Amino acid sequence: MEKHPLKRGTASTPTHSTSYQSVNKKFTNGTRVTYVHSDDDMIDITTSGATDIRSARVPEDDETNVNYSVSFSGAHETADIPGIGQYDDFHTIDWQRDIARDRMRHRYIIKKKQDSLWSLIEGAHDAWSGWLCVLLVGLFTGVVAGVIDIGASWMTDLKFGICPQAFWLNKEQCCWSFNETSFDVGNCSQWLTWAEVLGQAKEGAGSYIISYLFYIVWALLFAALSASLVRMFAPYACGSGIPEIKTILSGFIIRGYLGKWTLIIKSVGLILSVSAGLSLGKEGPMVHIACAIGNILSYLFPKYGRNEAKKREILSAAAAAGVSVAFGAPIGGVLFSLEEVSYYFPLKTLWRSFFCALIAAFILRSINPFGNEHSVLFFVEYNKPWIFFELIPFILLGIIGGVIATIFIKANLYWCRYRKFSKLGQYPVTEVLVVTVITAIIAYPNPYTRMNTSQLIYLLFSQCGISNTDNLCDYNRNFTDVNSAIEIAAAGPGVYQAIWLLILALILKLVMTIFTFGIKVPCGLFIPSLCLGAIVGRIFGIGVEQLAYHYPKTFFFSGECYAGDDCITPGLYAMVGAAAVLGGVTRMTVSLVVIMFELTGGVRYIVPLMAAAMASKWVGDALGRQGIYDAHIALNGYPFLDSKDEFAHTSLAADVMQPKRNETLSVITQDSMTMDDVENLLKETEHNGYPVVVSRESQYLVGFVLRRDLNLAIANAKRLVDGICGQSLVVFSSGNPPQTLGPPPLKLKKILDMAPITITDQTPMETVVDMFRKLGLRQTLVTHNGRLLGVITKKDVLRHVKQMDNEDPSSVLFN
Amino acid sequence: MEKHPLKRGTASTPTHSTSYQSVNKKFTNGTRVTYVHSDDDMIDITTSGATDIRSARVPEDDETNVNYSVSFSGAHETADIPGIGQYDDFHTIDWQRDIARDRMRHRYIIKKKQDSLWSLIEGAHDAWSGWLCVLLVGLFTGVVAGVIDIGASWMTDLKFGICPQAFWLNKEQCCWSFNETSFDVGNCSQWLTWAEVLGQAKEGAGSYIISYLFYIVWALLFAALSASLVRMFAPYACGSGIPEIKTILSGFIIRGYLGKWTLIIKSVGLILSVSAGLSLGKEGPMVHIACAIGNILSYLFPKYGRNEAKKREILSAAAAAGVSVAFGAPIGGVLFSLEEVSYYFPLKTLWRSFFCALIAAFILRSINPFGNEHSVLFFVEYNKPWIFFELIPFILLGIIGGVIATIFIKANLYWCRYRKFSKLGQYPVTEVLVVTVITAIIAYPNPYTRMNTSQLIYLLFSQCGISNTDNLCDYNRNFTDVNSAIEIAAAGPGVYQAIWLLILALILKLVMTIFTFGIKVPCGLFIPSLCLGAIVGRIFGIGVEQLAYHYPKTFFFSGECYAGDDCITPGLYAMVGAAAVLGGVTRMTVSLVVIMFELTGGVRYIVPLMAAAMASKWVGDALGRQGIYDAHIALNGYPFLDSKDEFAHTSLAADVMQPKRNETLSVITQDSMTMDDVENLLKETEHNGYPVVVSRESQYLVGFVLRRDLNLAIANAKRLVDGICGQSLVVFSSGNPPQTLGPPPLKLKKILDMAPITITDQTPMETVVDMFRKLGLRQTLVTHNGRLLGVITKKDVLRHVKQMDNEDPSSVLFN
Repeated sequence: MEKHPLKRGTASTPTHSTSYQSVNKKFTNGTRVTYVHSDDDMIDITTSGATDIRSARVPEDDETNVNYSVSFSGAHETADIPGIGQYDDFHTIDWQRDIARDRMRHRYIIKKKQDSLWSLIEGAHDAWSGWLCVLLVGLFTGVVAGVIDIGASWMTDLKFGICPQAFWLNKEQCCWSFNETSFDVGNCSQWLTWAEVLGQAKEGAGSYIISYLFYIVWALLFAALSASLVRMFAPYACGSGIPEIKTILSGFIIRGYLGKWTLIIKSVGLILSVSAGLSLGKEGPMVHIACAIGNILSYLFPKYGRNEAKKREILSAAAAAGVSVAFGAPIGGVLFSLEEVSYYFPLKTLWRSFFCALIAAFILRSINPFGNEHSVLFFVEYNKPWIFFELIPFILLGIIGGVIATIFIKANLYWCRYRKFSKLGQYPVTEVLVVTVITAIIAYPNPYTRMNTSQLIYLLFSQCGISNTDNLCDYNRNFTDVNSAIEIAAAGPGVYQAIWLLILALILKLVMTIFTFGIKVPCGLFIPSLCLGAIVGRIFGIGVEQLAYHYPKTFFFSGECYAGDDCITPGLYAMVGAAAVLGGVTRMTVSLVVIMFELTGGVRYIVPLMAAAMASKWVGDALGRQGIYDAHIALNGYPFLDSKDEFAHTSLAADVMQPKRNETLSVITQDSMTMDDVENLLKETEHNGYPVVVSRESQYLVGFVLRRDLNLAIANAKRLVDGICGQSLVVFSSGNPPQTLGPPPLKLKKILDMAPITITDQTPMETVVDMFRKLGLRQTLVTHNGRLLGVITKKDVLRHVKQMDNEDPSSVLFN
Repeated sequence: MEKHPLKRGTASTPTHSTSYQSVNKKFTNGTRVTYVHSDDDMIDITTSGATDIRSARVPEDDETNVNYSVSFSGAHETADIPGIGQYDDFHTIDWQRDIARDRMRHRYIIKKKQDSLWSLIEGAHDAWSGWLCVLLVGLFTGVVAGVIDIGASWMTDLKFGICPQAFWLNKEQCCWSFNETSFDVGNCSQWLTWAEVLGQAKEGAGSYIISYLFYIVWALLFAALSASLVRMFAPYACGSGIPEIKTILSGFIIRGYLGKWTLIIKSVGLILSVSAGLSLGKEGPMVHIACAIGNILSYLFPKYGRNEAKKREILSAAAAAGVSVAFGAPIGGVLFSLEEVSYYFPLKTLWRSFFCALIAAFILRSINPFGNEHSVLFFVEYNKPWIFFELIPFILLGIIGGVIATIFIKANLYWCRYRKFSKLGQYPVTEVLVVTVITAIIAYPNPYTRMNTSQLIYLLFSQCGISNTDNLCDYNRNFTDVNSAIEIAAAGPGVYQAIWLLILALILKLVMTIFTFGIKVPCGLFIPSLCLGAIVGRIFGIGVEQLAYHYPKTFFFSGECYAGDDCITPGLYAMVGAAAVLGGVTRMTVSLVVIMFELTGGVRYIVPLMAAAMASKWVGDALGRQGIYDAHIALNGYPFLDSKDEFAHTSLAADVMQPKRNETLSVITQDSMTMDDVENLLKETEHNGYPVVVSRESQYLVGFVLRRDLNLAIANAKRLVDGICGQSLVVFSSGNPPQTLGPPPLKLKKILDMAPITITDQTPMETVVDMFRKLGLRQTLVTHNGRLLGVITKKDVLRHVKQMDNEDPSSVLFN
């Protein structure tokens, strides 16, 4: 049952500005739009690429059951019409209403508390459920992260060889478990490479070729499996997921994006794609996985599961836990959640996020997947503090990092846009396989790209001590004693060789990451970005170090680098460079610095990290405005109102509101329209809601009623209330309607929102944007001297913002 | 010129519910109200205590010049009437309007940028001024903190003795400077106690008595000086200042609170009062000092200095810098600013706050007032990690901490309220002297209270190693080697003696801090709280340790405490206890944990710290709802709308709005009132603003006009416009008024806010409270079907919240 996908810009849907509503309508008219949420559980992924989420047909998931009873805060009564108030897929939630619903529920529980012991227990459970929920989220996130770490580490090593006596152990564990205490990056006798398994000698050309082939075959196998799993079972499991999480947290519904299938496939696919040696990281997807865990567990607690606004509190905490386990950085995780992904972040959430992040980190540390004592991923310890003059190279490094990040973002976006609108998007698995083969073939010969990216970062961060035998530490010096100071020395030939290999690695990583980020497997870009930056930083650092060695008398070195002491640590430059590129790519600021310092344990290096992160962010902002996540949000047309951007234009609400001049506003009068009138209005227009006015002549605003609620109420009334027919008056006012002879009126006051947010037509748009952001509005009504003039929806605001920024307003798709 | 202060509850002002307006009015009528802001620079502090800020007469300070030209965002024109838009003292600011003003200014600069090179430079300066300003704030804060640290350390030692060869050195520096490398807490020959200076022997009763007397005399001298300075020059310099900073940041004007005199006197007074040995800390006031620096420096940049909303961004950053220098904790400072004091905290501010905090910490570290390598205040390093079972005692410690904190808050509040309403408040200097004498007399004999509180905390946090000779470490064991493991041992008699002294110290500190926090000298309570907790924790920890020694076979110890290893570290318990009490007192959460771990460098102990902080906060919340700062805000009646509290009641806007039933709303019609009518209205009513409606009959809302603007516009028109007289029509509409024969109309459209925030009468109060908090409103207009019904001001909201919480609504004083 192949369905032709909706591809914007192709012949099948000629209008660029297809909004969600018209898409939906076309579908109901039987056109070839695949935007389907059927009841059967069959999965059918169209070939246009799953990041274009509209075109993917996803299995119905837990989230489908998000129905709830509506209760208008103004009316203080719960409507008894079933299904009223539910959100449609790809719709924006109404924060104010959801929060009001939750408070009402809360009051109800408090009132009931006195009734019986059971109610008291229920009340206590309700009060604790937030903490309990984040506790569970933390626990599960920690466990899942541990499983992923162990699995990825084992399978990564599987590409190279096996532990014949205990195949379930990875290389390090294999060597440790047989008491070879002198384990080195080199080898141990218990661990056999595939060449050795096949009876080849340890060294030699034949052995090399066999290992090379095995490497490629395993990589292909893993990648194919990962891509197929994603394609077959959970199209939403691809990518890093952070753009979508940001959008969901800002108040948008994407069903199935955080469902159980996505969770399972993303976890398995992540292990596979990391093991395939692709240029991607598992840190970004960890946020998605944690949020999926948060979403699933929130259904255990109706307070959160059945209220989209409250659920987002749990998701914010889960995002913090995701970063926490990804980097072992609980505080960084909380700040990441606060700064980067969350939208609505009350202080209560801060505290719970911290708790959740801490539990997750604690569980992960207890599982101890890395098998070492340090709880930090890239533990560094430098002998020398940084010197003040070094701020100049650090800032330079920040600028370079910003430039690299901008190149990466622009190229990646160009490629993703090409994929989206070309035939390439129809062959996601093939694309993954091609990328994997190319990566594997180029990566294997270079030791720095062959090794695990995390290991490479660790190597680049580390200081050249007595135990470090890598080429990078081939300096012309002799270590006499472990405790003696390391003297500054000229670089040996090994260092220059390492630099060349690192430059090659840099180019490979940069190019491959551009093509990798966006393919249809789970993939993050924290680790690749860090790696790019670490390579640049290390090379830069060696340069500064050699400068200090050869010209120790120069005034900026002379103060600190006395008597042959090694005052410049290239590893620190690698760390700073890593922060710079990651900062440029994601535009994180405080959270980046905190993550870096939790990641490395380098409390003393906050100032260099911050200088570089700041320079990088400014350069990035100057060259290309958006971070990678925001750029992908824009590419996919998600309705995300960034709270960081400032709206700096002079337009007024009157310029933005619908309807424009020469159009009429669809309104419902409070007591003069019949059911037929209302049903005609519903048929003729596609708005999500209608303002209710006193009379068509006066246009004084009474309230607002949602299309969905109106439909349900009418259907319900037809079914249940006697005598209701097309001529019945639909009455929203509270008093008795004028006595007429006709059929009984349909009273709908209880579905009327008597407290819609209104603004005057003279309100500047900056205030309107502010209100949409801070109050989480879905729409607002525009009045002048009390008369209704029009409506502004979130989509109108987003389009207006795009228009003002000289972007294509039709790229805003959803409402 | 003694003035009788306004004392609420005394005969001079019989009404409890005196609002600010009526206070002001009484004053103008010549009653004995001392709420004066005269133009002369004379300072006259009334005796009722300066925390009751209304009754203090303060010098006119920098902040007085906060005048600006108004520009209604709706009208897009700048009114040319001077003085319009300024805020009165003790008034609430209108965030929306100030931010709109700033954006307009920004647009103007951008537009002008193309005109000339100079405008381009001006534009660049404007763009950078935020960063430049926080940089300067960081620099100055670091320097001032360094001076305070050095000064306080020198004067604290001055109580005990002097360095005759270089009197400007403190004890530690004195001993160091003469190469006595074996400096101990004991003595060195260069440093002479006062007894030695007077020729007494080093030991002996005579020497003891002389030292005792000198101690008391110096303490009295310092305290008297501090109290007199505060009383004479800057009444706002007393206390910790954090409640007021919170209120100011939430959008309230207190002139002079952050002025230059307050800064100078608070800095000097802080050195003196810390040196006086009172039970207070210098950490809280450091936040006030930093904010004062921020305020003063913001006047260098009109963008911030002349815009109250923008200025608060700088103040938020300054608060972060204050905590950063107080504890050497930049990240903790930012989180403190975010969690505890700030109200409006956009992400841009987060980044700038971090920068500011970092610069301040960096400068302070460069000054190096503590003269040691570690940048952390209480650096700890324990040999053993904590064991899982210990979570139980940690949580118990948290509960104890919460109880102690609650006792402290309740007792302190009781005493402050007594001081406020009794004769005691009239003798602030006497009170300070009495408290000082009592503290000095009781504190000296006990070595733990005689020493500096910071030193005591450091001692309690530390682990008993080979070099620690204090009684606390008198265990029955022999150290054979520095590097050997410390074995667990039975406590010797010294430990028991130390415990008794510590219990006495605990009681003294608790009682004295209750009486000290609130006296009229600069005083904070971070350090006293930490100290209380550290004492409890250390005693508790020794108990657990001895339990583990005597019953090593019990199941919870048996797993970890094998073979005589010291698995319990009492110092860690002290740290956890300190966090618990501080958390209970201030109700800080994440920021507390981060500060504690930055303070001690103990990254591994986040989980214990958090468990204790959480338990303490919950116990505190269960026993007494408010933290000390919020309690003091409530005590002083500041208009602070806490963004942490949830409004959980069912009232509607109609229940809260003014006027109540049977009263009429003061409105202005858009084109039918004469100048006399308007002036009469202004005379008869005291509202801060008036709604403008279409006509008195229809009551359809047109806009909102501020009293202040109206007064100025009328005065201006009378002065400048020909023909304006009492019969002139006041016209707010844009079209031409109906042609009448009378005098020319006064057109005031440009002072009319055409975009007031409106709500319907059916809006639930929870939404209204949310709007006030998130949009920073000053008032909102209530409509029904487009007709104006009433007004809700921030004061109405605050009173309603109080009423709903069964508190006295009349305690809300300001508007």
